[in-house]
Amino acid sequence: MANLSKTVRVELGQRSYDVRVGAGGLEGLGAVVAQLPAVSSVVVITDSNVGPLYAERASQAIAAADVPQRRIDFPAGEANKTLDTYSRIMDDLLGGAPAADRKCLVVALGGGVVGDVAGFVAATALRGMRLLQVPTTLLAAVDASVGGKTAVDHAAGKNLIGAFHQPTGVVIDVETLWTLPAEEIHSGLAECVKHALIRKPDLLDFIEHNAQAIVDCDTDVMTELIAENVAIKAAVVAEDERESGVRAHLNFGHTIGHAIETAVGFGTMTHGQGVALGMVAETHLAISRGLVDGELIDRLESVLTGLSLATRWPDLDAGQLWQLMQHDKKAQAGRVRMVLPTALGQVDIFDDTHEREVVSAIGRLAP
Amino acid sequence: MANLSKTVRVELGQRSYDVRVGAGGLEGLGAVVAQLPAVSSVVVITDSNVGPLYAERASQAIAAADVPQRRIDFPAGEANKTLDTYSRIMDDLLGGAPAADRKCLVVALGGGVVGDVAGFVAATALRGMRLLQVPTTLLAAVDASVGGKTAVDHAAGKNLIGAFHQPTGVVIDVETLWTLPAEEIHSGLAECVKHALIRKPDLLDFIEHNAQAIVDCDTDVMTELIAENVAIKAAVVAEDERESGVRAHLNFGHTIGHAIETAVGFGTMTHGQGVALGMVAETHLAISRGLVDGELIDRLESVLTGLSLATRWPDLDAGQLWQLMQHDKKAQAGRVRMVLPTALGQVDIFDDTHEREVVSAIGRLAP
Repeated sequence: MANLSKTVRVELGQRSYDVRVGAGGLEGLGAVVAQLPAVSSVVVITDSNVGPLYAERASQAIAAADVPQRRIDFPAGEANKTLDTYSRIMDDLLGGAPAADRKCLVVALGGGVVGDVAGFVAATALRGMRLLQVPTTLLAAVDASVGGKTAVDHAAGKNLIGAFHQPTGVVIDVETLWTLPAEEIHSGLAECVKHALIRKPDLLDFIEHNAQAIVDCDTDVMTELIAENVAIKAAVVAEDERESGVRAHLNFGHTIGHAIETAVGFGTMTHGQGVALGMVAETHLAISRGLVDGELIDRLESVLTGLSLATRWPDLDAGQLWQLMQHDKKAQAGRVRMVLPTALGQVDIFDDTHEREVVSAIGRLAP
Repeated sequence: MANLSKTVRVELGQRSYDVRVGAGGLEGLGAVVAQLPAVSSVVVITDSNVGPLYAERASQAIAAADVPQRRIDFPAGEANKTLDTYSRIMDDLLGGAPAADRKCLVVALGGGVVGDVAGFVAATALRGMRLLQVPTTLLAAVDASVGGKTAVDHAAGKNLIGAFHQPTGVVIDVETLWTLPAEEIHSGLAECVKHALIRKPDLLDFIEHNAQAIVDCDTDVMTELIAENVAIKAAVVAEDERESGVRAHLNFGHTIGHAIETAVGFGTMTHGQGVALGMVAETHLAISRGLVDGELIDRLESVLTGLSLATRWPDLDAGQLWQLMQHDKKAQAGRVRMVLPTALGQVDIFDDTHEREVVSAIGRLAP
């Protein structure tokens, strides 16, 4: 039974869209598709993990909209978030029947990898098709599904090839999140903690007080949590769609976090764990600059530990991480741009972080 | 000596840019690059035909802007306008040194294939880099270099994978067009004839009166011709950036033309020859509908013949062409959208063209 009890509007002028959150959201897909004007066909793109779990239910719901539909699966995992996978999906999409046209709707059913890959397909097939994001992980729900970033990875780094392409809608069925491995929940929670730190201290209180209900995937608490986080993300994106200004605030924890994920190996460490370590290191850096006092690191480490996210990691090579950061999309020759906390609920962008202080901050991650 | 004597502004709000046209434009590249804010490095993307001719001159001019630069070549020809080529260029761009960052400027030096491929690279590397189009064919100068369309081909059809990505500027050195094979000039002229037919009868007069000077690549006449055509294209693009309305007018001749190119084989027939035949067939279709009288086809055929473009072609299979049109990006299940003339200098969009009339119009192309 569809019960999309919360709706958050992402305000982007002509490209505005609604994020619908609730229990049984998959069953509401038919109504959502039926409301979109002139959909010629639906192509559900999913992966080998999520397809067997939810594609049949999604397909039955979409059938209510009475348009032709088909499904394209690809092998799950960050290791498959490549131009090769993208190219194979394009072969299916463009070579299949019925012939794809610009009125096609791409439905991205899955976690962040599916959203990124299917999103990049939708951004570039026939120079742009509509995209409905249906995230099935907490991480994708509170982060990647909103904001229009799409990408695949390259050997030189994560998300180096992609496009901005806003979805035409997002449907989040909180019940699909129950089947997550616990570590995927924790990854999503790292982003929730990030949102709290950059914008909303109240949210940190909410997470602390409801930690158990969150880990137990209580429907009401999860709906509330997701809607709160989507609203923060939506507000930031609305203010700065193309990441030329404040949208960069969302990168808090990500500059060092991405480098750690890359160094440890994609798929070995969850994205959220990387971000958690990145937030800790970047907060240490902020403390060493006198931007915030030591209290913030205590609270951050305590919240992360309560969510089973590590705040220490062995054997990190700070020099190697610095080199990797030179490849970050946000890097500019020789210096690394970083988002650092300036108070609880507040961050700012610093263009002048240099090797010595970054290496020293990463050193604080040693167990 | 740089003499970019004409400048046409493409008005697209924050994404507005200038098209500079004149003799010796390549030598002006240094000044153009130097005017762009905060360029970290320049990557010149060109092909195996154009690279040996002009890359060295372009590079020397860019050196005046005093930023690091490098060059990526790929094998020339429409057959190489593929995801494979795109992927190899990405490997070079993202894996090379200095590390690519978002302040990179991609310079697309070459004909339409280079502009499309390098443009798609610029659109999607790090989710978007700036792009300077430096077209070296008449066709690219008057058509593809302005308007932000980028793409690669797919086995299922031309330009099926791509993005809209406006350049940050366009520099057209009319002297580079002198080295064109004559058939490339003719291809460009087919687009000029198209611009005249959809918007500006005066331009048709200009082409008729200056046919010899054009074929001889007279600098002043070419500069005038290109600036006139760019202005028409710019006005249409400014009115409708994302091809949801009047921009479709630019597809006059292209729906049937693309299908003919595909059927005959990419690389066997020039794009302009396909468009010329497409315009003839689509004008026949308009006449059969009573939209225009027979005088228009006489004038069109006479102008095209004067430019050495064929108005007849043997052995076209109209049924096969109709099938190919079903794969056109602009197609919607079962019907084909087509742009048809309604007077000299005027066209309109028709969503209801059906198989019988299209097949009959193509039949008029038989020698």
